[in-house]
Amino acid sequence: MRHFFMFTLLTLALTAPVARPALGQSDPLPSWNDGATKRAIIAFVDKVTKQGSPDFVPPAERIATFDNDGTLWCEQPLYVQIVFAVDRVRTFAATHPEVKDQPLFKAALGGDLKAVLSVSAYDRLQFLATSHAGMTTDEFTAIVNDWLKTAKHPRFKRPYTDLVYQPMLELLAYLRINHFKTFIVSGGGIEFMRPWTDSAYGIPPEQVVGSSIKLKYELRDGQPALFRLAEIDFVDDKAGKPVGIQQAIGRRPIAAFGNSDGDYEMLRWVTSGPGPRFGLIVHHTDATREYAYDRDSNVGRLVKALDEAPERGWVVTDIKNDWNVVFSWEKE
Amino acid sequence: MRHFFMFTLLTLALTAPVARPALGQSDPLPSWNDGATKRAIIAFVDKVTKQGSPDFVPPAERIATFDNDGTLWCEQPLYVQIVFAVDRVRTFAATHPEVKDQPLFKAALGGDLKAVLSVSAYDRLQFLATSHAGMTTDEFTAIVNDWLKTAKHPRFKRPYTDLVYQPMLELLAYLRINHFKTFIVSGGGIEFMRPWTDSAYGIPPEQVVGSSIKLKYELRDGQPALFRLAEIDFVDDKAGKPVGIQQAIGRRPIAAFGNSDGDYEMLRWVTSGPGPRFGLIVHHTDATREYAYDRDSNVGRLVKALDEAPERGWVVTDIKNDWNVVFSWEKE
Repeated sequence: MRHFFMFTLLTLALTAPVARPALGQSDPLPSWNDGATKRAIIAFVDKVTKQGSPDFVPPAERIATFDNDGTLWCEQPLYVQIVFAVDRVRTFAATHPEVKDQPLFKAALGGDLKAVLSVSAYDRLQFLATSHAGMTTDEFTAIVNDWLKTAKHPRFKRPYTDLVYQPMLELLAYLRINHFKTFIVSGGGIEFMRPWTDSAYGIPPEQVVGSSIKLKYELRDGQPALFRLAEIDFVDDKAGKPVGIQQAIGRRPIAAFGNSDGDYEMLRWVTSGPGPRFGLIVHHTDATREYAYDRDSNVGRLVKALDEAPERGWVVTDIKNDWNVVFSWEKE
Repeated sequence: MRHFFMFTLLTLALTAPVARPALGQSDPLPSWNDGATKRAIIAFVDKVTKQGSPDFVPPAERIATFDNDGTLWCEQPLYVQIVFAVDRVRTFAATHPEVKDQPLFKAALGGDLKAVLSVSAYDRLQFLATSHAGMTTDEFTAIVNDWLKTAKHPRFKRPYTDLVYQPMLELLAYLRINHFKTFIVSGGGIEFMRPWTDSAYGIPPEQVVGSSIKLKYELRDGQPALFRLAEIDFVDDKAGKPVGIQQAIGRRPIAAFGNSDGDYEMLRWVTSGPGPRFGLIVHHTDATREYAYDRDSNVGRLVKALDEAPERGWVVTDIKNDWNVVFSWEKE
């Protein structure tokens, strides 16, 4: 059996973290400026990983959950999935003229993205569900992959998957090398994220929790397939996040990372458990390198979680001051 | 960083598989008799793990899904969760007299377990949901743990968690040491399984997929909690299994293990994908050491999957002939 075992270890070493610091490198978070935020992250990881410490947490219980939009990648000026859906709506409406009179389709077809943003997460998900119903999960994955190859961010003129935050990649890698299991817990559609989270973040499909639409198993031409229905299964946002965590992971994480009030309940659920806990909010304060927004934004609105951060012990990351790099390519 | 990395490897070595064969031991499946079934298992694992082979599957895609009842542990004479629920119904009915007239409660309170078994999986889950509604997920976990400490199997006079199949533990360990990720995909309640699957099988909560009831996040006395509702969320049985796999795992497994027609759709979904695939049915043929049942059983009925096994290339494990041990303690 020895060769199997060594192969397992080798594979783990080769595949586990993305952007893992080289062995022997002293700073695991080089894109984070020295300061209170970085010290708080390292102090937490040190105490839960120190054998014999009263705060030691066994590796299996080191679960960390990350919001996606605005926490791991850029969500401005519009959630990427909305841009995707609006791009897709024309294709869908061409073969389903009956949807043209539905308010959200009408708005999207007319380019009124504010209207699309102003509705609830539930209504938005219903809109997405309708516009991608009837296809198989494999077909949907192919469409997402194709779209991401060509779509570009309107300001940065780069593929959206280039707009992941370098400091957060380092944080994910730092947690994983300390034997944390890292999950995405996003209000975004689970099937929209899974095609690219592994290559972008080192987070495999089975560690992605998100909003979902109902699926149906059927034989088509004698071959099994999973079809997307025009019906919401679950909205993984706000009070849905702790529920999504429990249904998918089955235990309470010890660390949570978010950036908006959509993450408030997840942060409370995670940080109110027994033992050492860590909550962090990414606060978008840098209009030069990225965007500056919080209370008045339709995208990633942050009010309550920011106001309550001090009393709840949540660490607030100030992008302008805490991150010396936002995107890996910005110094090119 | 080196000490983190070494610690990670050490932890993996210490914690990963249950009942892992000792390094250097030549037979990874000692409880399996030499024969076609064992050879088929080993041949599949060999070909997908052999670097450079046309059938090589990268470790991250080595997903294997296991049914639980009748595949990993004994399900006769009654699904364990039904025994649990019937035990709990008296407690529940004492404080909720209005349920006494509902047919399934009436049957359960009167000891008519055949009636409980004769209804659909959906109706049975609704019965379970009702009898455990209103409590938090933590309270439910504590009740399951307490019950498992004292409840005993009527024939074997042992705790139910002693009734896991030793050959299947070896198979799980063998797959894991070959870098498979092993999941349970069961019609049973997800929250009923998660408290004990890690100690029984080495399968952590986040790798358990099952039927679920709806949960609600609420503050109680200012503290966040997840409450169980009296409403079904998802039935992970028959055509629900491929759906549950997709929602929870997000990719198609390459190997599936089941024992009843409830696993038929999972077996078809898994074994009809591209590349090397493996499907296995545990056929209960040994009334002396365990139970013998298939076509006529209300528990774990096996008709269609058995009939189609030859044409679909599914391996049928004949317990009587293929397993030299069923339970680890039987030779004590």
